[in-house]
Amino acid sequence: MESLSKIIEILRNQKEVSGEEMASELGISRTSVWKNINRLKGKGFNIISSRRGYRMIEEADLLLPYRLRGLINTKIIGRHIEYFAHCDSSNNIAKKLAREGLKEGTLIICEEQEAGRGRLERKWISPRGGLWFSVILKPSMTPVEAPGLGFLTSLSVVKTLRRRYGLEASLKWPNDVLINGKKVCGVLVEVEAEMDILHFAVVGVGLDANLSIKDFPEEVQDIATTLKEELGREVDRAKLLADILSEMERNYNSFTLYGLESIFQEYIDLCSTIQKEVRVVQHGREIKGKAVEIDKEGALIVLTSEGRVRITYGDCFHLTNT
Amino acid sequence: MESLSKIIEILRNQKEVSGEEMASELGISRTSVWKNINRLKGKGFNIISSRRGYRMIEEADLLLPYRLRGLINTKIIGRHIEYFAHCDSSNNIAKKLAREGLKEGTLIICEEQEAGRGRLERKWISPRGGLWFSVILKPSMTPVEAPGLGFLTSLSVVKTLRRRYGLEASLKWPNDVLINGKKVCGVLVEVEAEMDILHFAVVGVGLDANLSIKDFPEEVQDIATTLKEELGREVDRAKLLADILSEMERNYNSFTLYGLESIFQEYIDLCSTIQKEVRVVQHGREIKGKAVEIDKEGALIVLTSEGRVRITYGDCFHLTNT
Repeated sequence: MESLSKIIEILRNQKEVSGEEMASELGISRTSVWKNINRLKGKGFNIISSRRGYRMIEEADLLLPYRLRGLINTKIIGRHIEYFAHCDSSNNIAKKLAREGLKEGTLIICEEQEAGRGRLERKWISPRGGLWFSVILKPSMTPVEAPGLGFLTSLSVVKTLRRRYGLEASLKWPNDVLINGKKVCGVLVEVEAEMDILHFAVVGVGLDANLSIKDFPEEVQDIATTLKEELGREVDRAKLLADILSEMERNYNSFTLYGLESIFQEYIDLCSTIQKEVRVVQHGREIKGKAVEIDKEGALIVLTSEGRVRITYGDCFHLTNT
Repeated sequence: MESLSKIIEILRNQKEVSGEEMASELGISRTSVWKNINRLKGKGFNIISSRRGYRMIEEADLLLPYRLRGLINTKIIGRHIEYFAHCDSSNNIAKKLAREGLKEGTLIICEEQEAGRGRLERKWISPRGGLWFSVILKPSMTPVEAPGLGFLTSLSVVKTLRRRYGLEASLKWPNDVLINGKKVCGVLVEVEAEMDILHFAVVGVGLDANLSIKDFPEEVQDIATTLKEELGREVDRAKLLADILSEMERNYNSFTLYGLESIFQEYIDLCSTIQKEVRVVQHGREIKGKAVEIDKEGALIVLTSEGRVRITYGDCFHLTNT
């Protein structure tokens, strides 16, 4: 592993380096240099090999662990990082690694997901440029409490977007993040559990960062947005991710120590669903009415023509934007 | 597969058959006979090979799929069977198979579990003679509703034991089955889910059928019992299993169609926890008092010195037997 970071350092300091120079500087064979270069490519480093030697490009635009490590100041979330240039879905990888025993806080980053998933097995478009990551969490709680993990994560994204970019980001119950009424980020919580305790949870975040609206299929171009579209420029995804993880860790600590109550008021304050006319779609059932409240367990209270309905899950659509 | 069932038939009808006789009767080679015999052994058939030929013993005492198929009259639960002579834990296998896409109702049977698990990763002693099985279920519901699967399963065991053997079996909240205050059966529900929907649930049942109390470690001999101890004889495990699965399917259909309510009154009627002094142990917390009620969501209501406490999970101990 030491050779890898030395090679990165050399490539960052020189425009182009021959295999021979590299080998002599590191005191290893040219074959070893070549093998290490290939390992770096596998980790997503964009290294170009030519007859004259090796050259690295676009490094600043990748979420490379060595760079993130310099930015992340958490104690749990993101202290261990698994990086993938391509993957099927970061949540799938996270679940697999969690089953294998990887520890709480492990961060899985995918530059590009080939089968990114939203809730209910929906496809989540995940080309290069977005922020697609999952975190393994192992809180000592029952599955009934697990929705709180989604609340705290979406809350962390909203707070970070507001503070970092001054964007008017808000929450759509339960876990979507909106800017100007359009979705910019989704959160997918998955759990493996017995009734008394979670074995683990995996919290996946899909944040449309440096994408263009044209990256989306036409049918969602009116209801989705991206940070790049809203800001008119690209963002530094690594710094953004580091900020989200810090915020997430603070909220996670509050939640596990003091319960949902401890982050609830902030969630409510930033939730734009309350006082809106909504339609909530559950498995084969639809509820329409005015969202009047979110209760202490995180359920949405909707005033319908037939009275108050307490909703604990489902897809919520805002029917009014005011 | 046809050869396999023909070989079983031949072995059931004759005390001892030579490889040559078998081969000519089936119109296959002696090598094929030998290979098929080995496959049957792998499936748990107790076939003895000697110079004089093949002999099958103790067949009636194994939970072999071909025999179960003749007894099970369900439409979903147990229509597909995976049989293991040995395994680590039937729930582990069930989860693995469910992830691979095996369908709802798949029944996993293990004659002997090497790492049988109770709730909270506790060891569950599972030698040959017990009834250790798991069922894969894929109901369209949220993880919050999943505890109902444990209620309906333990209820099914209690009802079957009462009807089949006239035993005074009862439920200890949430999912234990007792006879004369001693535990005879445990149920372990595990789920993989997102917040909106279960991907699947695995319901594991461990029923101490044809075991002796001496099969248990000394420290639990006073609080556990077995069917063999209570009845003074061994039971036909295959018939017992078929009955439990029938009962389970009826209750499962009610539960998924009409909700917990539809099986709730029966659960309450057979639950011996109500009106008992209890101690409930949760992660690092203990609640003592009188169990006065179980509410519509399945939570236990305990009257403590500090008032009514609503308990949704934990280990419950009966402090009185009356």
